Amino acid sequence: MPHRLFNFSAGPAVLPEAVLEEARENLLSLGDSGVGIMEHSHRGKAFTEVYEETVSACRELANIPENYKILFLQGGASSQFYFAPMNFLPDERTADYHVTGTWSQKAIKEAKILGNAHTASSSEDKNFNYIPKSYDYSDNPVYVHMTSNNTIFGTQYQSLPEIPENSFLISDNSSDIFSKPIDVTKYGLIYAGAQKNLGPSGVTLVIIRDDLIQKGSKKLPSMLQYRTHADKGSMFNTPPTFGIYIMGLVLKWIHSEGGLSAMDKKNKQKAGILYNYLEQSKLFNATAEKEDASLMNVTFVTGNEELDKKFIQCTEANGFSGIKGHRSVGGMRASIYNAFPEAGIEALVKLMKQFESDHQ
Amino acid sequence: MPHRLFNFSAGPAVLPEAVLEEARENLLSLGDSGVGIMEHSHRGKAFTEVYEETVSACRELANIPENYKILFLQGGASSQFYFAPMNFLPDERTADYHVTGTWSQKAIKEAKILGNAHTASSSEDKNFNYIPKSYDYSDNPVYVHMTSNNTIFGTQYQSLPEIPENSFLISDNSSDIFSKPIDVTKYGLIYAGAQKNLGPSGVTLVIIRDDLIQKGSKKLPSMLQYRTHADKGSMFNTPPTFGIYIMGLVLKWIHSEGGLSAMDKKNKQKAGILYNYLEQSKLFNATAEKEDASLMNVTFVTGNEELDKKFIQCTEANGFSGIKGHRSVGGMRASIYNAFPEAGIEALVKLMKQFESDHQ
Repeated sequence: MPHRLFNFSAGPAVLPEAVLEEARENLLSLGDSGVGIMEHSHRGKAFTEVYEETVSACRELANIPENYKILFLQGGASSQFYFAPMNFLPDERTADYHVTGTWSQKAIKEAKILGNAHTASSSEDKNFNYIPKSYDYSDNPVYVHMTSNNTIFGTQYQSLPEIPENSFLISDNSSDIFSKPIDVTKYGLIYAGAQKNLGPSGVTLVIIRDDLIQKGSKKLPSMLQYRTHADKGSMFNTPPTFGIYIMGLVLKWIHSEGGLSAMDKKNKQKAGILYNYLEQSKLFNATAEKEDASLMNVTFVTGNEELDKKFIQCTEANGFSGIKGHRSVGGMRASIYNAFPEAGIEALVKLMKQFESDHQ
Repeated sequence: MPHRLFNFSAGPAVLPEAVLEEARENLLSLGDSGVGIMEHSHRGKAFTEVYEETVSACRELANIPENYKILFLQGGASSQFYFAPMNFLPDERTADYHVTGTWSQKAIKEAKILGNAHTASSSEDKNFNYIPKSYDYSDNPVYVHMTSNNTIFGTQYQSLPEIPENSFLISDNSSDIFSKPIDVTKYGLIYAGAQKNLGPSGVTLVIIRDDLIQKGSKKLPSMLQYRTHADKGSMFNTPPTFGIYIMGLVLKWIHSEGGLSAMDKKNKQKAGILYNYLEQSKLFNATAEKEDASLMNVTFVTGNEELDKKFIQCTEANGFSGIKGHRSVGGMRASIYNAFPEAGIEALVKLMKQFESDHQ
């Protein structure tokens, strides 16, 4: 077993060791098939089983009703930023966006290239350190788009926004998918790049309601229509087979850890250790409003850029990786997704206490 | 070392064992970084090195001039089918397509959704068993599109088609990229899904000339413009990091095997063993015209569907995998990309001889 650092990377991010170990054993031969997991035809029996197990694990874990399809696409959330308006936003209609950080800014920017997009709420006035609680919806928006967790600014929706009747909710759940129970029936479309809570980069999980698949534009290239991928069970073209395999292992790992309620409990406990310390620290301060603070990405600063830099160096010298904050916020960011171990947070807090005591 | 079958899959396909073994050693920790290859941030030092080494290996291997960018995109060749016309085919112009099989049929179909596309040649009259030698170009096409090797029908261009002046060549090289030397300066844009000669599915290699990047449409969503990915060194969004890593290992493996000329020699030798036998066999016949026969995918039949089926069962019973032909051609297909070992072809021919002798 190689020595492993505590990896606070925002994504690609830490994966469960059990998953990595299982993948390692199957690189040269998936089970006793004599063909490595990356080398199996996507249409062969062995990979078909991997695919079906991944779909089933996903459906079971999140209790996804039969009238939703589970798709594995490519291109990350950034591709869904244009997929969604291309499919659902006709010229004469408007789509509404909740703008809670860099990713939702990018999502509305792409929508505006393709049609009418309206800002229904924004927390830009305070550098996105909170989640807006009041909304200014347009008249009869075709859909409402939100970003469930804001990786860069460390905020997270604690409950879903109410949306206008006859509209449907599209959510970019890339950075908190399956970190807690989810009621899929509240959404029309959920998408998530895998590289935070689900697997490696290069595969996007899409959960979409059947009626929306049918409603999508038919004037698009085949690959840009959700119906193409839904009709072919994500096999219209060659899917990212290895990514799907790893996602399946991660979903089974979540199941073995007790499922989404257990993840939620653990994530609250893990983030709680860090937030509790931050609340009483005289040196370090959380940047997000307490009531909207993310359980996935904990952002904090000392208020002194030099000291932030010194602390980051200190973490690196002590075997922590990836704790430097995004330049939009500065300071530090601890990304502590499902697979991040509690021991790593305890070790970080211990180091922060020492650093605080050394810099009073 | 697990027992490995001879894997004739058309893609995802066999990878060099040395590559799989190296990847296995880096799944839990890339070198001594303490963070697995899939878990490294795409913006961190460790992955930046992987990315830069992969670009360099590619540039060096194929002698790619500095005025071409090397990009790693997602969505496979199927996404390039619409990327190319979206970027380069304005309403008032026409693009010409050489239609030599299922994949070029798909390419022109997507182009026709987006603009004017003209069939400059087609071998559909003989179920695509040859490469057309004469062309009917439209007046001043903006580009000419070709598929260098036809996985399903077992044909391959032996030399590039002449194209009209003021046009540029776009080629889908998915199934024979880096199987032989290539003069990149003859092309405007080359694309290749990785899952045949380069790595796992989920990463697409794009080699594109600088002036075309600039000429591409600016009215598209950011992710659909080549310039976006070129400007950001494939890091506008999170790239498929693991796929890029594996591609880098494969490129270095090709280099260690002697480069593209050595690959060409080996591929000729390998395919030669099978074609030589087919030429004198009284039971098995190659389906592609001899002069256009592919070194990557060797398609053959007995002429009797029942016997084909029996032979396929015989290969499976004898530890070969993935030799069933595509339903468009029927019979058998031996996909023998760069990483496929010569020993596997010798073993296949031995089995074919035995089967022939048993069924005279």
